[in-house]
Amino acid sequence: MKNAEIIAVGSELLLGQIVNTNAKFISQQLAELGINVYFHTVVGDNPDRLLSAIKTAEGRANIIIFTGGLGPTKDDLTKETIARHLSKNLVMDPQALESIEQYFARTNRVMTENNRKQALVLEGSHILPNDHGMAPGMVLEMNGNTYMLLPGPPKEMEPMFRQYGCQALVSKETANEKIVSRVLRFFGIGEAALETEIIDIIDAQSNPTIAPLAGDGEVTLRLTAKHVDEDVAQSMLDEVEKAISQRVGQYIYGYDHTSLFAELTKGLKERNLTITAAESLTGGLFQKELTSIAGVSSVYKGGVVCYSNEVKHNILQVRQETLENDGAVSEQCAIELAENTASLVGAAIGISFTGVAGPDELEGKPVGTVYIGIASKGRPTIVEKLTLGGTREAIRNRAVKYGCYFVLKTLKDSQNAN
Amino acid sequence: MKNAEIIAVGSELLLGQIVNTNAKFISQQLAELGINVYFHTVVGDNPDRLLSAIKTAEGRANIIIFTGGLGPTKDDLTKETIARHLSKNLVMDPQALESIEQYFARTNRVMTENNRKQALVLEGSHILPNDHGMAPGMVLEMNGNTYMLLPGPPKEMEPMFRQYGCQALVSKETANEKIVSRVLRFFGIGEAALETEIIDIIDAQSNPTIAPLAGDGEVTLRLTAKHVDEDVAQSMLDEVEKAISQRVGQYIYGYDHTSLFAELTKGLKERNLTITAAESLTGGLFQKELTSIAGVSSVYKGGVVCYSNEVKHNILQVRQETLENDGAVSEQCAIELAENTASLVGAAIGISFTGVAGPDELEGKPVGTVYIGIASKGRPTIVEKLTLGGTREAIRNRAVKYGCYFVLKTLKDSQNAN
Repeated sequence: MKNAEIIAVGSELLLGQIVNTNAKFISQQLAELGINVYFHTVVGDNPDRLLSAIKTAEGRANIIIFTGGLGPTKDDLTKETIARHLSKNLVMDPQALESIEQYFARTNRVMTENNRKQALVLEGSHILPNDHGMAPGMVLEMNGNTYMLLPGPPKEMEPMFRQYGCQALVSKETANEKIVSRVLRFFGIGEAALETEIIDIIDAQSNPTIAPLAGDGEVTLRLTAKHVDEDVAQSMLDEVEKAISQRVGQYIYGYDHTSLFAELTKGLKERNLTITAAESLTGGLFQKELTSIAGVSSVYKGGVVCYSNEVKHNILQVRQETLENDGAVSEQCAIELAENTASLVGAAIGISFTGVAGPDELEGKPVGTVYIGIASKGRPTIVEKLTLGGTREAIRNRAVKYGCYFVLKTLKDSQNAN
Repeated sequence: MKNAEIIAVGSELLLGQIVNTNAKFISQQLAELGINVYFHTVVGDNPDRLLSAIKTAEGRANIIIFTGGLGPTKDDLTKETIARHLSKNLVMDPQALESIEQYFARTNRVMTENNRKQALVLEGSHILPNDHGMAPGMVLEMNGNTYMLLPGPPKEMEPMFRQYGCQALVSKETANEKIVSRVLRFFGIGEAALETEIIDIIDAQSNPTIAPLAGDGEVTLRLTAKHVDEDVAQSMLDEVEKAISQRVGQYIYGYDHTSLFAELTKGLKERNLTITAAESLTGGLFQKELTSIAGVSSVYKGGVVCYSNEVKHNILQVRQETLENDGAVSEQCAIELAENTASLVGAAIGISFTGVAGPDELEGKPVGTVYIGIASKGRPTIVEKLTLGGTREAIRNRAVKYGCYFVLKTLKDSQNAN
């Protein structure tokens, strides 16, 4: 069975100046090809340490993919190190040289001598053309291993891998198996609780596999099935999804690359409803997230950031009595904010956020206290109270996600009631 | 000489689902501490392969920093694997357990049995408290090596490393040289232009070093000086900063960990001025950024998100004539929005954002067209027109930063005029 290791070469990675997005990109591509990746390595522009990384990789992988160190400067030494290690010569590739010369002619720059060095390739290797830069990539088969060398800049590496690199690996792959993935997106349940609910399903499965991932207050499950017949792989996914849905389906809000706000926008459009917001705690974050969805203008016209009591009272008509007796962080204030912003803007749904983001408590209420009001035409206004943990930023982020989730639930519930 | 290897544990990294930002963050921190990093490794949630990665690291580094795999689920096995490898027991840490119990109590959630597992620590290790999550970090000294275990989520790991992790490594550092850094923050000049202006200064320097870094529409220069006497190192930084300031000082807005919005809040507080915003293009992003600064409530009371023409006209009194003749994306509309939001909210300064974030053009104006209006009491309202490139998100992000920068300039200019 083939498995791959990705070695990124570059001292700027070890100094923390840039992040290794190349490893992420290539890993994603390899996962789709069904090639397992067991290790990523990052090493600096140092020939001895690069050599030791190559030897370590040869002991545990049979596809070794290098990124970086193919440039013109003297600290670029990936192919030189590999050539020495495998006792291969570096030879001038006429096509690569011509393409470099053309690049300089086209961009009106003067070609320096060290740019010629980029056209040197490992003797006997298969060349991967660089359509977006100068250094060509290469693939060499030797001693049962595949060595693939790719340039470091993502703008050059990514199209090269997609266009030429994938193909070079697929033809090496003997397995006919198709790999199919599906991501289930959950909100309102933690990673540990979700796993507890479905642990027996996870344990019973090896194909499809079920991989939980938590982040940004959400949890996802990635289901991955392998089968020579893609349709069979898909129905294997359907079956596992059904079993999971029966346990925790109420927390699933979408699939694959969607988001809570994309689902909310879709749900509002389908029902021809508009929304507005009155944001105290969240200071505009809910509306910023909503307007990051292109085309939201048909369901969202605008809203208010009511950070102070003056704005709550003067613009959103929250009663002085409410602010004095209940406080700004209260159920009653959340109700008035949600209802009054809906009528001010003329929207079908008004959502309000009031609470304590910290660092200090407010009106005697502890940090993390959150009230979310949802006013919908023709229905009683509801208020959800949350107690959230974490930093100021985390509390605000999770509050808007909860708000989005509550409105989505309202939309679905009203549909089910009809 | 001490050198470090960073081992990130998590199959989601090898599947390309997330990028290893932890290695970048820790590398940057170690660079500032003067600790060399020669390798990064990423390995999946697999005990055998993790063990082999540990052994490889022990052969080439004496500080090994792990991130990830400290969570509650059964594929979290970093500390279990290290414990077995070093023949250490895992023991329940009462403080960590209490902190986990408190976390659940505070957030009103039910604690499941697998959450207790997070309070198990390596016997004899020094505990790094987790102020933003549940799993504690730990540091163990053994056989001349330092093993540091950190949680995977950056929101937990980064503050833990800054607050407690650095200190645990510094005390191990034998070198007498002090390393002093200073970050100069620029806005309104690109990285290439900045480098061109000061290339001779950069080339002439080896101590302090000058490292430019671009990101999020801003450029920073990190100056780093080494000297046994910290005061001497500081004056070396002063001298280089002075030379840079003479060339490009007008673009410097702050130092180290500040941000444009933190500087704006400070500037308004110092002058006892309040601000409000009317956001069309930016949909609440400016106010969200402003309210991410704790304590901003003394200078910011609230504002309006005026995404549609209805809200611009009905709530912010932009004249129908302006919307019909000039359009919503126009200088005149920016002026009325800025002035009218200031009088609606009763703030000294009103800022407005109107423009085209894309993906489609609007009113015949191309994507990236941005008007920012700034109305200040007792002065004529100004409008800045920008043409920004990039994605919808990039245009919105850069627009609010420019807006912040323009207001900051107004504040400074009015001070100089007095």
